[in-house]
Amino acid sequence: MAQRVRVHNLSLSLDGYTAGPDQDAANPLGVGGPLLHEWIFATQTGQAMLGGSGGQTGIDDDFARQGFEGIGATVIGRNMFGPVRGPWGNSDWRGWWGEEPPYHHPVFVVTHHTRSPLVMKGGTTFHFVTEGVEVALQRALETARGADVGVGGGASTIRQLLQAGRIDELHLAVVPVLLRSGERLFAEPREVPTGYECVRFVGSDAVAHYVLQRKDA
Amino acid sequence: MAQRVRVHNLSLSLDGYTAGPDQDAANPLGVGGPLLHEWIFATQTGQAMLGGSGGQTGIDDDFARQGFEGIGATVIGRNMFGPVRGPWGNSDWRGWWGEEPPYHHPVFVVTHHTRSPLVMKGGTTFHFVTEGVEVALQRALETARGADVGVGGGASTIRQLLQAGRIDELHLAVVPVLLRSGERLFAEPREVPTGYECVRFVGSDAVAHYVLQRKDA
Repeated sequence: MAQRVRVHNLSLSLDGYTAGPDQDAANPLGVGGPLLHEWIFATQTGQAMLGGSGGQTGIDDDFARQGFEGIGATVIGRNMFGPVRGPWGNSDWRGWWGEEPPYHHPVFVVTHHTRSPLVMKGGTTFHFVTEGVEVALQRALETARGADVGVGGGASTIRQLLQAGRIDELHLAVVPVLLRSGERLFAEPREVPTGYECVRFVGSDAVAHYVLQRKDA
Repeated sequence: MAQRVRVHNLSLSLDGYTAGPDQDAANPLGVGGPLLHEWIFATQTGQAMLGGSGGQTGIDDDFARQGFEGIGATVIGRNMFGPVRGPWGNSDWRGWWGEEPPYHHPVFVVTHHTRSPLVMKGGTTFHFVTEGVEVALQRALETARGADVGVGGGASTIRQLLQAGRIDELHLAVVPVLLRSGERLFAEPREVPTGYECVRFVGSDAVAHYVLQRKDA
């Protein structure tokens, strides 16, 4: 099967926000943003991601787990990596995930500012790419050696790749919450990408899962 | 219990459209619009609405049925009543629903153009209100004699009443379809009304049901 570019577990509020307003180190997901992710942290996969055990199995856990399966490299935007803005300088920021991030493969961070690669425990290395999201994706595809590439977010990274038609599959998890401000996946209707269709819908007790695929994928 | 203003079974595409583009007599729901309503016509309530029998019971049917329970009068916009634009003239348009509409109570149609009331079979009378949506709602509240008032749509009627804080409860049914154009419930993020919260979420096999309530309702 051909190498694919996939987005999993992208949580949206019912009104289309992927994060709340006023993101900073104290509120990495923005104010109200954690409400969007409660469903995933309630799962076994989510608990394992936090280094714990327990958690629920079932539909939500199945979706959560798929986000880690068959992925050989990941692309993320800079805000997804951390709250630091501008040049990295002497920043010792090493991501939100502690010393052993849940990726366990190379992660390409799209940024305007150069920084040396950051080797973490468990197989994750953060590479900082200053040539834009398409170059980051290209490097991820090469590095993944035939495995799929995951795009982790945030909204702007995913939107750019969707509009370029570079994403094959997009899993949205719509959470029954209204945020009314923050970062939107599609700020305007014209940003909804052409050429995608919804191929799967499943509702759990907590969240509505939609899988979109590129029609020619 | 106080008289309430309720919207039920408002079907939205995943990208927020309540109807497809190019609404006319041949495409009352716009191109692609019928996809939004398949779920309701698959239910027992939906089949009965069409004058038939059979159809599914379960979550979707429970929601569909609630849209008819305890409602004493309904407000709808003109486009919801029919495709005729401008003055009514000699129009013999009597609604989309045949001679016995499924309302069985007074229905107030918001229009810019006067027309005499239209008495249908089975207790439905269409009243044409030219003084705006708030006056239509007021007349519906008085006519309902203590029962609740339903707001049937379309998007613009519901949006105006939401923004005026006149809707107590809003049931959205989000369908796993992308329409990319047509009529949106909220064209812009700022149109999402303040003061509402999502109090219930249930996913069926076909659709994600969200119930919003006004916080002070």
